[in-house]
Amino acid sequence: MRGAVIYAPRDVRVEERDDPEIVHPTDAIIRLAATCVCGSDLWRYRGIEAVDGPTPMGHEYVGVVEQVGREVRNVKPGDFVVGSFMASDGTCEICQAGFQSRCAHVEFVGAGGAQAEYLRVPLADGTLVGTSSQPDPGLVPSLLAASDVLGTGWFGAVAADVQPGKTVAVVGDGAVGQMAVLAASQLGAERIIAMSRYEPRQKLALEFGATDIVTERGDEGVARIREMTGGHGAHCAIEAVGTQESMMQAIRSTRPGGHVGYVGVSHGVQLPGEELFYAEVHLHGGPAPVRRFLPQLISRIEDRAIDPGKVFDLTLPLSEAAEGYRAMDERRAVKTLLRP
Amino acid sequence: MRGAVIYAPRDVRVEERDDPEIVHPTDAIIRLAATCVCGSDLWRYRGIEAVDGPTPMGHEYVGVVEQVGREVRNVKPGDFVVGSFMASDGTCEICQAGFQSRCAHVEFVGAGGAQAEYLRVPLADGTLVGTSSQPDPGLVPSLLAASDVLGTGWFGAVAADVQPGKTVAVVGDGAVGQMAVLAASQLGAERIIAMSRYEPRQKLALEFGATDIVTERGDEGVARIREMTGGHGAHCAIEAVGTQESMMQAIRSTRPGGHVGYVGVSHGVQLPGEELFYAEVHLHGGPAPVRRFLPQLISRIEDRAIDPGKVFDLTLPLSEAAEGYRAMDERRAVKTLLRP
Repeated sequence: MRGAVIYAPRDVRVEERDDPEIVHPTDAIIRLAATCVCGSDLWRYRGIEAVDGPTPMGHEYVGVVEQVGREVRNVKPGDFVVGSFMASDGTCEICQAGFQSRCAHVEFVGAGGAQAEYLRVPLADGTLVGTSSQPDPGLVPSLLAASDVLGTGWFGAVAADVQPGKTVAVVGDGAVGQMAVLAASQLGAERIIAMSRYEPRQKLALEFGATDIVTERGDEGVARIREMTGGHGAHCAIEAVGTQESMMQAIRSTRPGGHVGYVGVSHGVQLPGEELFYAEVHLHGGPAPVRRFLPQLISRIEDRAIDPGKVFDLTLPLSEAAEGYRAMDERRAVKTLLRP
Repeated sequence: MRGAVIYAPRDVRVEERDDPEIVHPTDAIIRLAATCVCGSDLWRYRGIEAVDGPTPMGHEYVGVVEQVGREVRNVKPGDFVVGSFMASDGTCEICQAGFQSRCAHVEFVGAGGAQAEYLRVPLADGTLVGTSSQPDPGLVPSLLAASDVLGTGWFGAVAADVQPGKTVAVVGDGAVGQMAVLAASQLGAERIIAMSRYEPRQKLALEFGATDIVTERGDEGVARIREMTGGHGAHCAIEAVGTQESMMQAIRSTRPGGHVGYVGVSHGVQLPGEELFYAEVHLHGGPAPVRRFLPQLISRIEDRAIDPGKVFDLTLPLSEAAEGYRAMDERRAVKTLLRP
């Protein structure tokens, strides 16, 4: 099969790779209908995270089950499925509590490289969720979004305790930030403040439900949020970047007793304990337990209540994956969908 | 009046000070029935926090209202009252949400120095809670505990989401840690693991409701907690020290999806963002909004459902405040009660 492999920063190649095979009796093999490039893939692409030899890339996927191991019960060949980037058994105490991304037997699905024609998904029963029927092709981008960015933005909003009547600040205008705006809107937030300096991304955030845009960042951004919230700060902040600046911006934008949900993959962040102590906010986040949200996300997509697929503003054949990375790196695209 | 003043590390003197007076119409003056020395007072006593000239000490108090400003409605002279170390208006959005320690008009009551015969309490209506009648003298230590250490330990347990059936690890065996054990027990925790190396403090924790003692600390303590919890970690951890080691011990003792409540006043802590991200715990804490809990704490004390006053293992006249500090510094006492 064909699949994307990163060799070094800025060196992504689509090449012939071995077809995946069933390794464990709990595995499934998926033929991908669509896959995509993640903001977190850019950490390696930009050389911020090390590339240790040629590495298959991609961890977002939707497609049709091709083959299942002998212990798989919940999905069968022919089913159209969505899964999380983290494989989970669905039965351990951690999964049962809704934190499947930290399952006691967790495996990173992306290890196999989802930017490819086929993918092996471990722990298929606990990981994959089927759609109610073969989806309309127009829904495929939205279902693909559910696999990571929508699920992650949704978790950010839940971790930030977004509820009807609340004011929510969203730090980060990439795909996850956009999905966090959509999630906050679906969860009934009264006011959703998207923090963004880029006009096309501001526009997208408004389409997804943002009520306000703040273009300032850092201390000035925080001052604007406070000004807009009676001096107190937002009830909720969703952090969708992962840097020191964005974390502090989220924490400082939140009122005492408020909630910060952080889903940007953390890079080089050190949180000052004393400031955190007196901030008196709630903090929660990490790799999103997307599996927890998949059934309701799929059903909102099938009901056409949401259209998260709009977050893909570039669609390319898998063979042009390198250009998909480049466009995102240069901010010409928010998120690239790849057609195997 | 007589009051304790710190001049320099290890130099606490009880001397003649001016009687406090009503400054604002929302103030009340209290004649103290009892006051005490706080673990956080030791930061200055030990020179870890700077002493900028002679400073009145103490922020924990119970007593009888002597005088009120003309706008005070909820308490009157003669009432026996308990109050938090943070004065709060009780009416702002932050107070209404239950975070009175970060009230929009918050004032530190301890600025006046509660280790004294009289104390001015600002924002009396939002800060003080009366007992149902003049308390039995035997209840005074417990009511005094409610003013800070019990309220703080209780907040730690609430911030750590302690609930029936949960396993709770308590890091710190000082007065706040002991009160956190008591709170966890009252909130129905199934298993309460007190982390302590000191035999008398282990004994006290067991009296307050601890079910297990772990003597190891740091990585070894974390390993013990994991071993005791099926490899997952505790559902809840309460941090009641405020150091880097104790914060990391609390975070690492908690399972993914679990809750860490931190109430130890933070000193020199830096939380590594990447570890926090993958820990996937909930974090909440800060200066305890004791006022939120006072009505229920007072009523549990009046009903003799709890006896937090046991945390005072040394009682001295106010004139011997210096010895009270010394005994706590040398770990000869968990907490010193002072009788004005």
